[in-house]
Amino acid sequence: MTKLKWGMIGGGEGSQIGPAHRLGALADGRFELTAGALDHRPDAGRAYALTLGVAADRAYGDWTEMLAGEKGREDRVDLVTVATPNSTHFEITKSFLEAGFNVLCEKPMTMTVEEGEDIVRVSEKTGTICAVNYCYSAYPMVRQARAMVATGEIGKVRLVVTNFSHGHHGDATDADNPRVRWRYDPAMAGVSGQFADCGIHALHMASFICNDEVAKLSADFASTIASRELEDDAMVNFRMSGGTVGRLWTSSVAIGRQHGFDIQIFGETGGLRWASEQPNQLIYTPVGGRTQIIEKGEGGLHEDAQRLCRVSIAHPEGFPLAVANIYCDLADVIRGEVRTGLPDAVAGLRSMAAVHNAVASAKQNGAWVDARPPMFR
Amino acid sequence: MTKLKWGMIGGGEGSQIGPAHRLGALADGRFELTAGALDHRPDAGRAYALTLGVAADRAYGDWTEMLAGEKGREDRVDLVTVATPNSTHFEITKSFLEAGFNVLCEKPMTMTVEEGEDIVRVSEKTGTICAVNYCYSAYPMVRQARAMVATGEIGKVRLVVTNFSHGHHGDATDADNPRVRWRYDPAMAGVSGQFADCGIHALHMASFICNDEVAKLSADFASTIASRELEDDAMVNFRMSGGTVGRLWTSSVAIGRQHGFDIQIFGETGGLRWASEQPNQLIYTPVGGRTQIIEKGEGGLHEDAQRLCRVSIAHPEGFPLAVANIYCDLADVIRGEVRTGLPDAVAGLRSMAAVHNAVASAKQNGAWVDARPPMFR
Amino acid sequence: MTKLKWGMIGGGEGSQIGPAHRLGALADGRFELTAGALDHRPDAGRAYALTLGVAADRAYGDWTEMLAGEKGREDRVDLVTVATPNSTHFEITKSFLEAGFNVLCEKPMTMTVEEGEDIVRVSEKTGTICAVNYCYSAYPMVRQARAMVATGEIGKVRLVVTNFSHGHHGDATDADNPRVRWRYDPAMAGVSGQFADCGIHALHMASFICNDEVAKLSADFASTIASRELEDDAMVNFRMSGGTVGRLWTSSVAIGRQHGFDIQIFGETGGLRWASEQPNQLIYTPVGGRTQIIEKGEGGLHEDAQRLCRVSIAHPEGFPLAVANIYCDLADVIRGEVRTGLPDAVAGLRSMAAVHNAVASAKQNGAWVDARPPMFR
Amino acid sequence: MTKLKWGMIGGGEGSQIGPAHRLGALADGRFELTAGALDHRPDAGRAYALTLGVAADRAYGDWTEMLAGEKGREDRVDLVTVATPNSTHFEITKSFLEAGFNVLCEKPMTMTVEEGEDIVRVSEKTGTICAVNYCYSAYPMVRQARAMVATGEIGKVRLVVTNFSHGHHGDATDADNPRVRWRYDPAMAGVSGQFADCGIHALHMASFICNDEVAKLSADFASTIASRELEDDAMVNFRMSGGTVGRLWTSSVAIGRQHGFDIQIFGETGGLRWASEQPNQLIYTPVGGRTQIIEKGEGGLHEDAQRLCRVSIAHPEGFPLAVANIYCDLADVIRGEVRTGLPDAVAGLRSMAAVHNAVASAKQNGAWVDARPPMFR
Repeated sequence: MTKLKWGMIGGGEGSQIGPAHRLGALADGRFELTAGALDHRPDAGRAYALTLGVAADRAYGDWTEMLAGEKGREDRVDLVTVATPNSTHFEITKSFLEAGFNVLCEKPMTMTVEEGEDIVRVSEKTGTICAVNYCYSAYPMVRQARAMVATGEIGKVRLVVTNFSHGHHGDATDADNPRVRWRYDPAMAGVSGQFADCGIHALHMASFICNDEVAKLSADFASTIASRELEDDAMVNFRMSGGTVGRLWTSSVAIGRQHGFDIQIFGETGGLRWASEQPNQLIYTPVGGRTQIIEKGEGGLHEDAQRLCRVSIAHPEGFPLAVANIYCDLADVIRGEVRTGLPDAVAGLRSMAAVHNAVASAKQNGAWVDARPPMFR
Repeated sequence: MTKLKWGMIGGGEGSQIGPAHRLGALADGRFELTAGALDHRPDAGRAYALTLGVAADRAYGDWTEMLAGEKGREDRVDLVTVATPNSTHFEITKSFLEAGFNVLCEKPMTMTVEEGEDIVRVSEKTGTICAVNYCYSAYPMVRQARAMVATGEIGKVRLVVTNFSHGHHGDATDADNPRVRWRYDPAMAGVSGQFADCGIHALHMASFICNDEVAKLSADFASTIASRELEDDAMVNFRMSGGTVGRLWTSSVAIGRQHGFDIQIFGETGGLRWASEQPNQLIYTPVGGRTQIIEKGEGGLHEDAQRLCRVSIAHPEGFPLAVANIYCDLADVIRGEVRTGLPDAVAGLRSMAAVHNAVASAKQNGAWVDARPPMFR
Repeated sequence: MTKLKWGMIGGGEGSQIGPAHRLGALADGRFELTAGALDHRPDAGRAYALTLGVAADRAYGDWTEMLAGEKGREDRVDLVTVATPNSTHFEITKSFLEAGFNVLCEKPMTMTVEEGEDIVRVSEKTGTICAVNYCYSAYPMVRQARAMVATGEIGKVRLVVTNFSHGHHGDATDADNPRVRWRYDPAMAGVSGQFADCGIHALHMASFICNDEVAKLSADFASTIASRELEDDAMVNFRMSGGTVGRLWTSSVAIGRQHGFDIQIFGETGGLRWASEQPNQLIYTPVGGRTQIIEKGEGGLHEDAQRLCRVSIAHPEGFPLAVANIYCDLADVIRGEVRTGLPDAVAGLRSMAAVHNAVASAKQNGAWVDARPPMFR
Repeated sequence: MTKLKWGMIGGGEGSQIGPAHRLGALADGRFELTAGALDHRPDAGRAYALTLGVAADRAYGDWTEMLAGEKGREDRVDLVTVATPNSTHFEITKSFLEAGFNVLCEKPMTMTVEEGEDIVRVSEKTGTICAVNYCYSAYPMVRQARAMVATGEIGKVRLVVTNFSHGHHGDATDADNPRVRWRYDPAMAGVSGQFADCGIHALHMASFICNDEVAKLSADFASTIASRELEDDAMVNFRMSGGTVGRLWTSSVAIGRQHGFDIQIFGETGGLRWASEQPNQLIYTPVGGRTQIIEKGEGGLHEDAQRLCRVSIAHPEGFPLAVANIYCDLADVIRGEVRTGLPDAVAGLRSMAAVHNAVASAKQNGAWVDARPPMFR
């Protein structure tokens, strides 16, 4: 099987997200890095691309150059990853989709709901794949949870409780650190801080596992460090279309939490728990029974979990391979297989709608508001 | 030191709470069971009291008989524990306080806010001790957390996040079980189900550790099992008087959680975490530093924690000894020592105000309401 | 039911073990402290006994006085606890047994094997109860493990692996601290240090859960702090009479372990794991199946576990209540009930034989030796 | 930087180890798969190599063909991975080393000590790199542990305790399963079963972290399933050259353990603990202080740990990336950098000597024997 051709925008030398995408895309040998516009400094980007094995004529100076260069080629790239600053995601993603390229966009897909709807429409119209990197959803045990819900193993879901809390922005003396500050500055981060940054992973996870959409929500935002204009802590209560009650807490001032992203799903006949810091286990309790530990790689997992286990039971697999799983699914979809688990533009749009609506709710003292994007109301 | 004389109302044969109180009161040899009206069936109560070593003339048929009998004695009991059905707490507690007895009342202290204010006034007027059995607050490591907050070891508290979730009422096929059903029946449980039953432990804990009062709140209640009139799941956002942001989730349908009562406190310079299922450890992270495990019984604990450690480090101490710690503090206070940690009638009143105000908020779609009892506004 | 009369030798003011025994004996109201010789200083012991409510004529100056005083009484004590320095256990225990008293002796029961055999014979001859305080065996979930083995739930036991490791003697700069030093001084501690102090708890536990005796053993002892004459770290491999393979590691220099006493039992059809720092859970894995968490207080426990659960599921119970469970069983046995779980003089003897034989093995570079006391060969 | 050329022997379609090596080698883009003899069926191996992108003239039918083919090329492979059945490792590895290739050999490097010494000599003589895939040693937090020991952060190491226990061979009804049976059949596995399979990982880890060699040992082997000729459970006590006491338990019948590989290192001034199922944390306790959690990716790690962290703190990294770290170090060494952490032929030889000497000890009832290979005595 020949490798798929892959292009990358952003993720240049020194970026943190670049290596994660390259590891994810290359780990299974299903993609090769064929083209790139890796840096906002054209020369640096071209030079770095060469060191990564990109041919000179496909080491571009910026994304417009790459779009122009690739568009005309017979052997154009099969997938473009957009890993640029958030505010540029929309324009780049839309442009590539319109030119018929498949795109994997880093989250958030857009800054506004209108842009999100635009992306959904363009993706539909052009028949291109637009995926968003909600990579936590690609952990095998998250897929197992989703399959267990889908097959009714915990009954109708009553309640989902999810957190994404860390404390890495908890030091007020570090609040002016540019790496931290921009998250809470509306000029750079948009309408929301921590909820838009981390909370939407949790919100997506809730929708993903329950296979249901967030219908309405009520938000309480707080800036616990006074100098911050945007929230560093948020609680969002929600209801899903199917009636499931949701609770989501996210924080960046939870000192001692490193990466406290976890989710609990409670149904009529059982409960599930998954935590991103121990991603290889899924905790399951049947109603009236004992708590059981489901291990990645054990026999009898659902197919969508089993196929994403790379090494045998109890050999832990971590975050970079969750990203790799997104690329696996993308490779499959590009080749025409059906993969229902891939987070798509609609998922990206729903997140953006949730962010804007949570902001609106928080501004109205937690009034319940419709959480859905206008096009899906 | 002679033992203090102790009387008990309720907690008869077969009750679950009776043995816990007796173990708590007797464990340290500071009380002896001197009088009792242990059962709503007078003869059964008298007979059972005799088997517990109560003299025949102080084995009473009901609480009014006990009040009459003890009131006139020179050697009347030093403390009365009220462990009767919730709706009777107010009348019994008030009557004994008025007659000059010290009382330890099971939670909830009263069913209404007005009753709670009444108890506070009576206790003040008579100079009697009225304690409420928020026994989790008497775990040594909870006291350690409180002392660390008080001495500024985590700086000003920004955020407190607490949960009390279990799944023992998660089986809808068991919903008509009388032991379960009454919790969700307003005729028996009052205005609130799970929040009044478990949530107030968490709310008290937040106030207790932060040494601050809950000033306002916004609640989202859900009855995830349709037949229930009262909530079996609740989220309460709150603000303390000092500005601390609070988040409290409580549930009885969280299948797989056994006794998921935990609390996290995040301050300007550190974070703390404590969980009731592992009560002998307190997890502490200084801002920018590594997470540390503080062990019950280790050297250098704050005095209010150290004195409540009964056995040496890493020999676990559990729930019954937390109850015993309440009795220890009570014995000290009765003998005239100062114990600031004892939950008092004001704590009982504040809980009741929080319950009623949370119900009001939930009925108004989560509107923010004053959480305080009228007498403290 | 009238209370049983209880006498205590040792455990005076300031001792650590005294409060644990008093809490254990008094927690359930089945004993009352009737007599005591609590201190090696006669006056101090008498005075302290009075403060604990002992009548003046039964507050004795030493154990010989107590023996003389109690022997002649109609209402003599039903049980004597021996909580004196190790080297005195034999003489006191034997004397009281010979006079027809029941005894609960702290471990080690004796210093030599011959003494242990003597105690076993005296106890048999006089028909008195001689129990040894292997209190870990009285945790409900240890009883559950034992019952699961007995009923074949994990099949024939192939392998048992147990550790008792702590690091509280790991500071060489503290090695001359008298509280630490005596443990490693043959003049005070006898032939063995850490193995005799902690290892025998683990060895007893293995025998207790498997209901089998240690038949032969091979030991490797080390004094990792050079100034110590006796071992501070030991590994003992053993075989049980039924063929089970055993592995026991014990250490007092395992810095970071607080109370690392745990045991794993592996049978033909399942495995079990229990740890003393989380004593309320028993981890069970059926062969080919998922790991399950068995909770203290859950439905369907074996009777010998269920009856020792005092409070409901997930309210943790700790070490002092394990001691209390020993007293419960003792009260039952004194009253004529059959309790198979009580550690008896034979258990005390077997431990002593194991200690002496382990020392012999260690001195012969780990040669395998018979682990049994001569009288049971 | 151009990629290094990589050849693989074994690891064909359906093998478990092949994908792990490919992921490891390709993850960072430092190697490209250039040549391969992937299967013992020549045609299948050639065909599969083509699907992995190997050019037709370098898709070989067996290793001799590959050796002949590569030897003469200007652009011959920079590294050969040997992932064939154990009994073939020696011949293949030696042949490639002699021809001047660098080799990464799967463990065990050889079946006999003599073969191991041969490999060490050939590697030295030819100046080639011979690495052995003790990949656990390449986890960042294992490197951190090693660096902490090297810099004296826990003082002189007194004691190291390590386990590698699983239960995947615990089902006697599965004992004739060919995938299981061969492990315990001397004709296929050699002199040792579980110790040679898993125990040597633990033994290597002890040496690796302590930077010391195992000098002498005493072993107790057991075949807990009677049909097995080789041991399925082993305890090995050892002493390192520097005096450190060692304890190693390994088992394949520990039902409930999935991948119970952990290690504890106790020094004069602190203790460390690391477990392969939670590889991203290192637990550290300074003597007299509190236990701390050191997180992969936190600030201030030792350089040899920090450089192997691929994603930020608390994003877990797992087993496949530990393998990838071995390849990273290999790439560095091939390019001339100094990497002290890479397990080399001497490590492979020492393991083999330990296996043979443990077998000898076990056959002599645990007699202490020299653990070192003759060439290092």
